[in-house]
Parts: sequence; structure tokens; C-alpha cells
Amino acid sequence: MSSQTKFKKDKEIIAEYEAQIKEIRTQLVEQFKCLEQQSESRLQLLQDLQEFFRRKAEIELEYSRSLEKLAERFSSKIRSSREHQFKKDQCLLSPVNCWYLVLHQTRRESRDHATLNDIFMNNVIVRLSQISEDVIRLFKKSKEIGLQMHEELLKVTNELYTVMKTYHMYHAESISAESKLKEAEKQEEKQFNKSGDLSMNLLRHEDRPQRRSSVKKIEKMKEKRQAKYSENKLKCTKARNDYLLNLAATNAAISKYYIHDVSDLIDCCDLGFHASLARTFRTYLSAEYNLETSRHEGLDVIENAVDNLDSRSDKHTVMDMCSQVFCPPLKFEFQPHMGDEVCQVSAQQPVQTELLMRYHQLQSRLATLKIENEEVRKTLDATMQTLQDMLTVEDFDVSDAFQHSRSTESIKSAASETYMSKINIAKRRANQQETEMFYFTKFKEYVNGSNLITKLQAKHDLLKQTLGEGERAECGTTSRRDGRLRLPHFPWLSCPPAPHFVPHPAFQGRRNARTRNQDSGQAIPLVVESCIRFINLYGKRCLS
Amino acid sequence: MSSQTKFKKDKEIIAEYEAQIKEIRTQLVEQFKCLEQQSESRLQLLQDLQEFFRRKAEIELEYSRSLEKLAERFSSKIRSSREHQFKKDQCLLSPVNCWYLVLHQTRRESRDHATLNDIFMNNVIVRLSQISEDVIRLFKKSKEIGLQMHEELLKVTNELYTVMKTYHMYHAESISAESKLKEAEKQEEKQFNKSGDLSMNLLRHEDRPQRRSSVKKIEKMKEKRQAKYSENKLKCTKARNDYLLNLAATNAAISKYYIHDVSDLIDCCDLGFHASLARTFRTYLSAEYNLETSRHEGLDVIENAVDNLDSRSDKHTVMDMCSQVFCPPLKFEFQPHMGDEVCQVSAQQPVQTELLMRYHQLQSRLATLKIENEEVRKTLDATMQTLQDMLTVEDFDVSDAFQHSRSTESIKSAASETYMSKINIAKRRANQQETEMFYFTKFKEYVNGSNLITKLQAKHDLLKQTLGEGERAECGTTSRRDGRLRLPHFPWLSCPPAPHFVPHPAFQGRRNARTRNQDSGQAIPLVVESCIRFINLYGKRCLS
Repeated sequence: MSSQTKFKKDKEIIAEYEAQIKEIRTQLVEQFKCLEQQSESRLQLLQDLQEFFRRKAEIELEYSRSLEKLAERFSSKIRSSREHQFKKDQCLLSPVNCWYLVLHQTRRESRDHATLNDIFMNNVIVRLSQISEDVIRLFKKSKEIGLQMHEELLKVTNELYTVMKTYHMYHAESISAESKLKEAEKQEEKQFNKSGDLSMNLLRHEDRPQRRSSVKKIEKMKEKRQAKYSENKLKCTKARNDYLLNLAATNAAISKYYIHDVSDLIDCCDLGFHASLARTFRTYLSAEYNLETSRHEGLDVIENAVDNLDSRSDKHTVMDMCSQVFCPPLKFEFQPHMGDEVCQVSAQQPVQTELLMRYHQLQSRLATLKIENEEVRKTLDATMQTLQDMLTVEDFDVSDAFQHSRSTESIKSAASETYMSKINIAKRRANQQETEMFYFTKFKEYVNGSNLITKLQAKHDLLKQTLGEGERAECGTTSRRDGRLRLPHFPWLSCPPAPHFVPHPAFQGRRNARTRNQDSGQAIPLVVESCIRFINLYGKRCLS
Repeated sequence: MSSQTKFKKDKEIIAEYEAQIKEIRTQLVEQFKCLEQQSESRLQLLQDLQEFFRRKAEIELEYSRSLEKLAERFSSKIRSSREHQFKKDQCLLSPVNCWYLVLHQTRRESRDHATLNDIFMNNVIVRLSQISEDVIRLFKKSKEIGLQMHEELLKVTNELYTVMKTYHMYHAESISAESKLKEAEKQEEKQFNKSGDLSMNLLRHEDRPQRRSSVKKIEKMKEKRQAKYSENKLKCTKARNDYLLNLAATNAAISKYYIHDVSDLIDCCDLGFHASLARTFRTYLSAEYNLETSRHEGLDVIENAVDNLDSRSDKHTVMDMCSQVFCPPLKFEFQPHMGDEVCQVSAQQPVQTELLMRYHQLQSRLATLKIENEEVRKTLDATMQTLQDMLTVEDFDVSDAFQHSRSTESIKSAASETYMSKINIAKRRANQQETEMFYFTKFKEYVNGSNLITKLQAKHDLLKQTLGEGERAECGTTSRRDGRLRLPHFPWLSCPPAPHFVPHPAFQGRRNARTRNQDSGQAIPLVVESCIRFINLYGKRCLS
């Protein structure tokens, strides 16, 4: 470096150094402020969360109580009415079962929301307040450690300042020693030149010893100054070395602080905050997920009951409950008049011809009637199918109403347009009732037809038997009817098979009626059930 | 049948018949009553369900409003405070993100419960009232058909009564004709015996023609009675046949009614009831299931945010936001004094020996210090591990509180004993804070040690370089430090590697810290980030 460079003055260097130190001190203060602000934000967040969960807990409790009250209102009504009407739960009809399960679910939801309240109040909020304590305590401790770190930094920079000043001092002394040395050298040179001039012009003898002592004096001073300079230069070198070493140490210490210690300090403040907060949120989530699971289980139970809504089984239950009302009465027996010994249709002449004619008439009439009634039945079945399609239309999916992508307003209107628009409902219902009317008209027609067929068929069968018996009697066979039992007859066992014994699935109120129909050649079980009912009622009386 | 059997009198037969008819009539009336009662129960059920869903809808709306108010209270607070503090959402810290999502979820729940209200009021209840209409209408129509069926039955039994009476009449006439015939036969026989007696005793001639006409008269009467008897017997046979045929028809008709028609009648009443009710329940279930799905989605979002609670990332966010506060300051530069041309540690004699000695002293001191500090670090790590285990204990599962097998009371107490008993909490916290204290003591010790090491290491390294340079300078190599850049130094790049650069997982607040640590040789990214911060702040100033 040449002397042409304008040197920084000491004061400038000190000012620059002090400015740099001031900047660092400001940063350190700001860092504390930042940590403090962070802690305060956390405390504020924790307080907000506590307030939130306290209020949420209240809301859950209110909700729970409302649900409980609602369930209790109907449950108590059921308890009081049930004691009058039914004694056993076996008689529970499937729609009533659904209703009880809905109430059960309401009570379950009530309990679950009360549990939510309990967990929020006695767990989540407690955790949050503990985290608040932790944040305060950790901030204090971290600040303590931070202050120690800052003190260490300031100590290091103070040392740097000291060694820098020392270097400046020794370097200044070294410069001054150097300049003094140079001055001495200059004087020596001047003396040397002066003595050369004199020896050339006139030599004044008396002057010589005086000059020699002067030269000696200058030389001595130069030597002294040389020594002083060397001493100062060494001191300066040592001081510079010290300065440079301290500079490296200071820079390393500051680097370490900014790169590692500040980060560690923040970590100290953070210690466990995220983990504890996560556990708190997970407690909240666990509660909410469990509520959901419980709710889901309850809904599944209801769904199962809805799947089992079964009009056929309910019908049997009702008929069993009122078995005396639905039990077929005793068959009308032939009452022989005044010891009349003939108890059967008599087919001897002269009535035989007439009966035979009547039999054939009945046969052809029945054939016609059956064809006609079969046509009615087909129409009836088709109408029922149409009706069934209307009654089991899957119009109950309300997922659309829960789409959150759109705004609340547009959802609601969209939903009500889709699933329950008044025009659609009116149309559907009008259509349904029209079909229903037609169905009933056809049903009446069919019942009338089948009534007539039943009666004529009974006569026809009796005539056929009678006329056939006459023939068989000639071949020596004995009619089964002759060995008449005194046991009660089960008249329905001998009546013609029901023309529409396969139950209409629409009567069953089930979504997948087909799975149910597979195992229902129901006509026979129905008959068997009637038999059992009948035997229970009349069996002993008749058999005794 | 012999005449020894005591015949039933006509009156008895009629009385029995009428009793049987009366019994049937009573059953028919009771059947209607039963159908009516069934319909009434259904209407009552439907009314209860409507009332239930109306009240449930109200409860849902109250709940929805409370939740909305709760969310709004905090959201508005955030809106107003956020405008002051932050401008961008990028600076969202992970706990704040969780908090916002909890609020978002609250709003979502509010909306969903409002939707529930909407569906109950405008769909479920509407359906229920329609089913009520259907029940009333179908009961009326079914009763109409039932009445027709009953009329038909009564018609059939009346016919039976008529033909039975006819049979009785003709049979009575037949009996009377038979007895008259028998009387005539008796008279004829008497006459025949009388005439035999006379012819044996004395034949009075004048008496003969008188007797002959009497015999003829009797014979004529007998023939007449014979004819009458045959005629009546035929009429009786026909009437009996008619009676028997009608008996069969009547029994068949009654059987048909009891076996099929009553069942069909109930089916008519039931028509679509179960199906429509099922659809109504399914609408309710669809709403509840959809609410649940929506709730679940929202909870999953929160859970994801909780998984992403990350102290490290938050720390960087905060340091980025306050980059001026955390940016490492400019390195202290060597300030040459008054044009001092020596800017490096001088290692010429006479200081070389001293420096060399100092270098070796530093080397051995550092070795000792590093061993000591490594021991402290190991204790620190072990303590942190213990602390981490405490902080990440999985104590947030509250499933037990939602077990419904036990009674409500026992659940609550059991739950609070398990997951948040006060004694357990106090123990845990005391233990945690003790460990924390120990950790901080060790941490201070470690920081002090590493501070000293950092400074001594810097001096050591500079000395090593200086002394080595002296040697290398002799071999003609040029030190890299000689070609000094005027660019700012990144002092941290030359500082010793952080002794504990692997981040402590407990600082992260994550459940499975291991997955995170795998991709975090974090020390380098941290340095790189610091560089970028530094360049952003000082880069232009320094490079210009």
C-alpha cells in the first residue's frame, strides 16, 4: 500500500467500529423483541384456543341437553303408552323399531356430545393452559441464556476493541520512533555533508574535536532511536498479531452466534411447543373422530333396521297378535234334517242327468271366467309393478346439499330444487295416486272375479267328485270321503290355490325386494301359519 | 244313522247357524277395527316422527347458529388483527394454520347442521306428512273394498240359509208325505185284514160293493200319497243337493276370504307404506351420513395440518420475516493503522517461536476442551431424548370415553381417571420440568464450552495457516488468502462445523420425527438460507 492512499484516521476507525457494534447491539435487542413477540403471539393463540374450546364445550353441552330432552320427551311417551298396549317387545313392528332406534341414536348423540364437552373442558383446555405456562417459563429461561450469550459477544467485541487500540498505540509509537530515527539519520547525513565541505575550503583545527563530538552524539542518538524503533516495531507486530487473532476469534464467535446460537435460542423457546400443541389438537381430533365413529355405528344400526322394514312380517305379527280376529271360522257343516240319512250329493236318477249337465255348464263357465280373470290379474300385476317403481324410486340421496365448493346460499337453493321441488312432488304424487286408483279398480274387479270362480269351482269340484264316485263305486273302489273323520276340516287346504300367491314386492317396503322374494314361496308358510293359529284356537275343542 | 239318534230340531239348527254367522260378523267388525287401529298407530307414529324431526331441525339450527357465531367471533378478530400484522398468507405459521382450520371446520359444521335443518324441514317432514295422507287414503279405499268383501260373504251365507231352509221344508214335506203314505198303507192293510175276517165268518152280500169301493178308495189314496211322496222326495233330494253345493261354495268363499282376501286387504292398507317410510328414513340417513363425511373430510384436513406442525419450518419463517434482525452482521475487518502495510499475522522472528509455542498450546487445549464438551453434548442429547419421549407421549386417544356399553356415569369418571387424572398430570409435569431444568443447565455448559472452542479454534486455525504459509511460501506456493477478494466474506462458511448440526426431533413437534429427519442434513440448507438472506441484504451494497 502506497502512501498516496488516504489513511483512515483513528477517530474514523473507532467511529466505524462503534457503529458496527451499535448495529449488532440493536440486532440483539430486536432478536429478544422478536422472541418475546413470538411468545406473546403464542400465548394469545393459546388463549384464543382456550376461549374457543370453552365456548365450543358449552355449545356441545347445550346441543347434548337439547337432544336428551328431545329423546326423553318421546321415550317417556312410549313408556307410558307401551305399558297399556303391548307387554312384550317381540311384537315390535318394523317401523316402530326404526323409530325406537332413531330415539336411541338421539340419546347416543346426546351422550357423545356431552363427552365432547367433558373432553374439551377437562382435557383440551387443561393442556392448553399448561402449554401457556410452558411458553412463559421457556421464554424466561431462554432469555436468561440469550442474555448470557449476548454478554459473551459484548465481552469478545470489547476485547477486540482493546487489542485494536493497543495495536494503534504501538503502531503510532512505532511510527513516531521511525520518524525520530529518520530525523536522526537525516541529521547524521547533514553532519556528514557539512564536514565534507569544510575539509575542502579551510580546515579550522580548533573546530575538529568539536565536530567529532557532535557526530558521535548524532550517531549515539541514531543508535538509541534505532533501538527504540525496533522495540516499538516488535511491540506493534505483537499487538497486530494479537489484534488479528482476536479479530478471527471475534468473527468466529459472532458467526457462531448468528448461525447456531440464535437458532438454538429459538429452539429453546420452542422446546416442545409444537409437540404439546400437536397432542392437544390430536386429543380434539380423537374426540371428534370417536364421536363420528359412534355416530356412524348408530346410523348403521338404523340403516339395518330400515333394510329390515318388512310389511309381510309386520302383517303376520299383527295377525298373530289378533289371532282370534283373523282365525278362519269353523267350516259350515251339513245339518241333516230330522234324521235325514243322506248326507251327500245324490246323483241317482232322475237328478243324475241334470247334475251332469250342470257340471259341464260349470266347467265351461269356469274356463271362460279364469281366462278373463287371468287377464285382469296381468293388468293388476303390471300396474303394481309401475306403482312399485314409483314407491321405491331412489330419491333419498342428499349428497348434493353437502357440497362445500359452492357458497352456502347457492347450495341450499340448488338442493331444494333437486330433491324436493314442489312441482316435481306434485307431479309425482298425482301420477302415483292415479296409478293407485287404477290399481284399486282392477283389484276390485279381480276380487269379484275370483270370488265367483271360488264358489263355482267348489261346486264344480263337489259335482265332479260325486259324479266320479258314482262311476268308481261301480268299480268297487271306496271314496275317501266315505271314511269321514270327525276331526275338524281345514277348509283352506282344499280350496283352490291362490291365483296370485307370489307376494307383490311393493307390499314389503324393501329396497332390494328380489333377495327377499327368492326365499318366499310364501303361500305355503301362510297356510301353515293359519293352520297353527287355527289349531291353537280350536284344536283342543275339536279334538276332545 | 239310526232313528235312535236324537235329531237336532229345526230351531236348534237355525240357532247354531245364526250363532256361527254372528261369530263371523263379529270377526269382520273386529278386523276393520284392527285395520283402523293399525292405521291410527301409523298416523300417530308419523305424527311423532314429524314432531321429532321438527324439533331436531330446530336443535340443529340452534347448534349451527352457535357454531357460526363462535367461528365468526374469532374470524373477525383475526381479520382485524391480520391486516395490521401480516399482509401475506405465506407467512402462516403451522400452529396458526391449525387454528384457522379448526375455525374453518367450525364454520363447515355450522353449514352442515344448517343443511340438516333444511333437509329435515323441507324433505323429511314433507315426506312424512305425505305418508300420513297416503295412510288415510289407503285405509278409506281398503275399507271400501273390505265392505264389499264382507257384503259378498253375507250374501253367500244368506243364500246358504235360504237353501238350507228350503231343504228343511222339502225334507219335512217329504217326511209328512212319507208318513201319510205309510198311514194309507196301514189303512190298506187294516182293510185287507178286515175283509179276510169277514169272508171267513159271514158274507153279507149287500155289504160287498160297499167294501170294494172302500178298498178302491184306500188304494187310490195310497197311490196319490205314493206320488206325493216321490215328488217330495225328489224335491228334497234336489234341495239337499243344492244345500250341499252351496255349503261347499260358502265354505270355499269363507276360506278364500280368511286365507287370501283379509291378507290382501291388509296389503292394500299397507300399500307403499314401508317403502315410503324407508325412503324417508334413508333421506334422514343420507343427510346424517353426508354430514359425517363432510365432518370427516374437515377433520382430515386438520389432522394433516397437525401432522405438518413443524417448529423448524416456523423458525425459518419467523427468521425470514425478520431477516434484518437475524442476518449475520458484516465481518469485522482488519483496520490497518496509519497506512500500516502489514495486514496479516507476522510470523517472522523473533515472534515465530512464541507463535509456534502458542499454536501447540492451543492445539492441546482444544483437544481437551473438545473431549470435555463432547461429554456434555452426549448428556445433553440423552436428556433431550428423555424430554422428547415425554413431549411426544401418545396420550391423546380418548376412545374409552365413547364406549357405550357402560352407563353414562361410569364412562365419565372412568374417562377422566384414565386420560387426565390430576395426580398423573402433576407427576408428569413435575418430572418434565425437572428434566427441562437439567437440560438447560447442561445446555448453558455446552454453549460456554463451544463458545470457548470456537474462539480458540479460530485463533488456532489462523496460526496454523500463518505458520504453514511461511513454510509453503518457501516452496513457491501462493496462499489463497493473498489474493483477497473485496467481496464480503461469509464468515460462517469458514467457521467450524456445528458440533450438533443434526436437529433435535423434539424441536419439531411431529409425531413421527424419524421420517422427517431422514431428509434433513439440515445444517447445509440453514447455511445456504443464511447466505441468501445475507446477499439479499448486503449483496448489492458490497458488490457495487
